[in-house]
Amino acid sequence: MSAPHEGPPAELVELLREIRPAVAADAAAVQAHLDDLTKPRGSLGRLEALALELACIYGDPPPPLDRATVVVMAADHGVARRGVSAYPPEVTAQMCRNFAAGGAAINVIAGAVGAAVLAVDVGVDTAGDPPAGVRGCRVRRGTRDLAEGPALTRKEVLQAIGAGVAIARELAAENDLLMLGDMGIGNTTAAACVTAALTGEPAEAVVGPGTGIDAARMARKREVVAGAAARVPATADVVDVLAEVGGLEIAALAGVVLGAARSQMAVLADGFITTAAALAAVRMCGAARGYVVASHLSREPGHAVQLGALGLTPLLDLELRLGEGTGAALALPLLRSAAALLRGMATFSSAGVSGRESVDG
Amino acid sequence: MSAPHEGPPAELVELLREIRPAVAADAAAVQAHLDDLTKPRGSLGRLEALALELACIYGDPPPPLDRATVVVMAADHGVARRGVSAYPPEVTAQMCRNFAAGGAAINVIAGAVGAAVLAVDVGVDTAGDPPAGVRGCRVRRGTRDLAEGPALTRKEVLQAIGAGVAIARELAAENDLLMLGDMGIGNTTAAACVTAALTGEPAEAVVGPGTGIDAARMARKREVVAGAAARVPATADVVDVLAEVGGLEIAALAGVVLGAARSQMAVLADGFITTAAALAAVRMCGAARGYVVASHLSREPGHAVQLGALGLTPLLDLELRLGEGTGAALALPLLRSAAALLRGMATFSSAGVSGRESVDG
Repeated sequence: MSAPHEGPPAELVELLREIRPAVAADAAAVQAHLDDLTKPRGSLGRLEALALELACIYGDPPPPLDRATVVVMAADHGVARRGVSAYPPEVTAQMCRNFAAGGAAINVIAGAVGAAVLAVDVGVDTAGDPPAGVRGCRVRRGTRDLAEGPALTRKEVLQAIGAGVAIARELAAENDLLMLGDMGIGNTTAAACVTAALTGEPAEAVVGPGTGIDAARMARKREVVAGAAARVPATADVVDVLAEVGGLEIAALAGVVLGAARSQMAVLADGFITTAAALAAVRMCGAARGYVVASHLSREPGHAVQLGALGLTPLLDLELRLGEGTGAALALPLLRSAAALLRGMATFSSAGVSGRESVDG
Repeated sequence: MSAPHEGPPAELVELLREIRPAVAADAAAVQAHLDDLTKPRGSLGRLEALALELACIYGDPPPPLDRATVVVMAADHGVARRGVSAYPPEVTAQMCRNFAAGGAAINVIAGAVGAAVLAVDVGVDTAGDPPAGVRGCRVRRGTRDLAEGPALTRKEVLQAIGAGVAIARELAAENDLLMLGDMGIGNTTAAACVTAALTGEPAEAVVGPGTGIDAARMARKREVVAGAAARVPATADVVDVLAEVGGLEIAALAGVVLGAARSQMAVLADGFITTAAALAAVRMCGAARGYVVASHLSREPGHAVQLGALGLTPLLDLELRLGEGTGAALALPLLRSAAALLRGMATFSSAGVSGRESVDG
């Protein structure tokens, strides 16, 4: 692998320095505001905690979050040729055409919740340009086989991160928040390796059925992940980890998280792949953590490991295991609703509503 | 109490007969459609089960569910004067003004998800007409104290049910689905009595903190519920139960469920009060069950008892305990997204996407 201590380039160092903690509002003042709204204190549960988080990101009140885009980063994985997925590798490119045509799950769910979708080819293994409607940022045609050696060079990882940062910067001009989505046959294998390397958990804790593999593929996948994660030295930085066992979409999504945090926008993680990326981003810059919201708990078992490492509690538990940003898009209305509490609700005094009875009689 | 076997009036009997089972589509054919969409089979988890339910209600594909209204039934409870709530009874009327002014939680959440709100005074204990913007259907100014004797007469219960049926019928003309909401200081006490009477569970299993009461009020509430529920004879029909220990908003909401089912529309339950109403409706007409969707699991402990009795699994678990239809409105985007899968997703063949690898090699 690459030399572990060459450090990130000046441009990335500068970006990481520009990310400010999410303290756009005073948490105690926001809590007092929430407690003064016409509802029993705390009666909106997780929605109130979410409103507080949004106020810390955007200020109180937060914007309505009308303008939101799911960034679906697509890339291929050399390891997919080893039969670690239930689907053949060409599905990544086919699904890019499906995104462009509007026929994928993320297209219809984003449509239903009022969000845009931007699919990005950051490393699909196909000849020629991506289809019209898919942004081309291809770093290379898929990763090398991570079971054999480093999946990427540090330079390729940094290029993919940079592509994600640039897209987040561009989208920040006309979006209030971003959602993370992924597409890549074989990418739960790479995400499991990244998660194992960043958290120290064993392969068994982070390997799951992905799109739905049988016992034989599952055993092979576990063996691949254990072997690859073991190659990552304890001294590796995040870029090293992504180079040794990562994927181009994972690196690019980490870049989107960093770019969104720099622009002081919330970023909604989806499932196992995107949360691996969020974990990588937060390990690069702890201040980015305050901008990440966990949308749902995936059925992929390693997702809970990642969320635990990030200290995040997911909003939804719908037994999803698709990716593409579907869980993130499904959670978007909860964020808009949480923002609306602080934007539009009356207070007890403004509405002339009596408070709690002070004497218990 | 009223004579237990006088039976419902001809009009209600006729309505119950008109409710057809939710079999607008063949479940096996819908499942085959879901399995042919461009995603791993079952990878959208609960959302796929929800899509199947919607197809059974509306046909495949279901409508986009753009037009949706939260019906917030408001009424007072004589038992509230016993100090079973943390808030004084006048809050019910004050909150009706808040609904009319758009300042309540349900107003801002409905706005955020794109739904309308119709607040209805079906029994608020206040002089004069309801405020402009609140529909007046007042059966009487609150119930009698259910701790002392029957809360309502059978005639009053039937009048409230009829008001709910009429509103559902009216809204069916310009809505694709309805959501249930409630407002009424003291109504968790009535809902607990109704739940105990309909399920046979003891008071301890169905009494909770409501809007947030202390230990002394909780003990009093438990005693009231146990005593009142014990008065309901085993031979009581649902109208008897609602007359003895119910509430006007609970009866009216049961009417909304029946009316929605008759119009073959889905109806989203909210928390403890509205699910008591849904349980009452389903006990009157089992076929109505297929139209009810459980939006969330309330923190009120008796809610799980009701959902278990109905065989419903809630979509969200956000630790809500407010009512007003807030949980129902928060779940609406999930229904729209589930409908969108069947409406808009491509199939493997139409999108030219390869299926699972058939040989494990």
